[in-house]
Amino acid sequence: MTKQDLFEQIKLKRSFLCVGLDTDIDKIPAGLKKLTDPVFEFNKRIIDATHDLCIAYKLNLAFYEKLGPAGLVSLEKTVHYIPGNIFLIADAKRGDIGNTSDMYASTFFEYYKFDAVTLSPYMGKDSVDPYLRYTGKWVILLALTSNKGSEDFQVLKTDRGYLYEEVLERSSKWGGSDQIMYVVGATKASSLTAIRKIVPENFLLIPGVGAQGGSLEEVTQYGINKSVGLIVNASRSIIYASGSMDFDNAARDKCLEMQSEMGALMDNFY
Amino acid sequence: MTKQDLFEQIKLKRSFLCVGLDTDIDKIPAGLKKLTDPVFEFNKRIIDATHDLCIAYKLNLAFYEKLGPAGLVSLEKTVHYIPGNIFLIADAKRGDIGNTSDMYASTFFEYYKFDAVTLSPYMGKDSVDPYLRYTGKWVILLALTSNKGSEDFQVLKTDRGYLYEEVLERSSKWGGSDQIMYVVGATKASSLTAIRKIVPENFLLIPGVGAQGGSLEEVTQYGINKSVGLIVNASRSIIYASGSMDFDNAARDKCLEMQSEMGALMDNFY
Repeated sequence: MTKQDLFEQIKLKRSFLCVGLDTDIDKIPAGLKKLTDPVFEFNKRIIDATHDLCIAYKLNLAFYEKLGPAGLVSLEKTVHYIPGNIFLIADAKRGDIGNTSDMYASTFFEYYKFDAVTLSPYMGKDSVDPYLRYTGKWVILLALTSNKGSEDFQVLKTDRGYLYEEVLERSSKWGGSDQIMYVVGATKASSLTAIRKIVPENFLLIPGVGAQGGSLEEVTQYGINKSVGLIVNASRSIIYASGSMDFDNAARDKCLEMQSEMGALMDNFY
Repeated sequence: MTKQDLFEQIKLKRSFLCVGLDTDIDKIPAGLKKLTDPVFEFNKRIIDATHDLCIAYKLNLAFYEKLGPAGLVSLEKTVHYIPGNIFLIADAKRGDIGNTSDMYASTFFEYYKFDAVTLSPYMGKDSVDPYLRYTGKWVILLALTSNKGSEDFQVLKTDRGYLYEEVLERSSKWGGSDQIMYVVGATKASSLTAIRKIVPENFLLIPGVGAQGGSLEEVTQYGINKSVGLIVNASRSIIYASGSMDFDNAARDKCLEMQSEMGALMDNFY
């Protein structure tokens, strides 16, 4: 999916919402557990209920790998079920040497047909390059994450600013803003002005609205650009909005709420 | 496996060799491909031929995930086949927020029964903590890697030295040297003296001897400590020592060569 395609979808749906399908077998309603593939069934119902309100789904690999080989079957079925006009993110946070990255890139982009994969920048350019060789595919690099541990290394002072600023600065030269996005936690909204000075054109994937407490209004105010440039992810607050068999309706209500707020916020800027 | 157990195995086998089972379906002999699970068959023969000469096996997840769910079946069978006195490393290079790390830790330590998992430090302490809650299990943090991209961020100057030094310094306080190891590339042997000043007691996992050109002698000279403190990994140079059906014998010869060099190097220090 191109950057323009993504922007068109955002305008069309008046939404820059990404639903995180972090589906934990231990948290889904008991009523689904007797089915052959409860994780897929849960995802299917969430997708049916939300796909017109979001522009992306993000699948956190940990939740699928936890189940061993069977989990990857649920992942594969979920990926195939998601409509083609929706941006599909593998939240894998990989990062390895070249020949290994080649393999991960092939897995995520060719085998599973994801549009994008999240990566850690720690191993540098040659760990990211193999993913950038795919036209129309995306790399989403961790920059400033939403967790407390982001304070350990990401905000260390280097010669030229914080480490995460150096990550943005350098890596934004490895590929265009039609190939590279960055993870910036919603809990770090106050840093978005500085971040936008370094990467004005890139999309940002923003977790941390919802369960982790970030503000959608602040994120939009400081992070929006002329292509919107934001994909705001919410996982637990949507998919576990209800613990009963009406979870899909509850997820839809939660998405409607966020989509309506996003539409209004976009109106302030366009 | 405890640190003492590991040291005992090293002394017993006169070896600190780790064989990297980075088994690429596209590189194994044609004669195996007609079997039901060629990757497992390849691994089985490598393990049969080398398990008395090495003290660890490292499985790079990328090579298994590439094959989708079937690849994880090969992984699972391989892990079960490896004898219990051998240290088992999941080379996964994960790193994620707490609730996700919980899940990865459970996958690698409980589901697959790995002894250790490689992690990227970028997301900080709370991304590592869930793994440290397992007694007798290990975290292997990326510090200074063997690839060219290690120059991009790992050697950035911070207030208190290079970024990788700061990673060693801080993270070595998150847990003991019986829980945390570090990845240091063999191509960076000259940095080992400085690294040993910061983490004198920790084991180091050293890739990059063999295909990537690092020197075993230099690594030992600068990196060895009183428990040896080194696990030297070689993958391609061992498992693909021959491309024909005698690959297992060729792998054994290559291991014998390394084990014999290791034994001699250890004699210089004990």
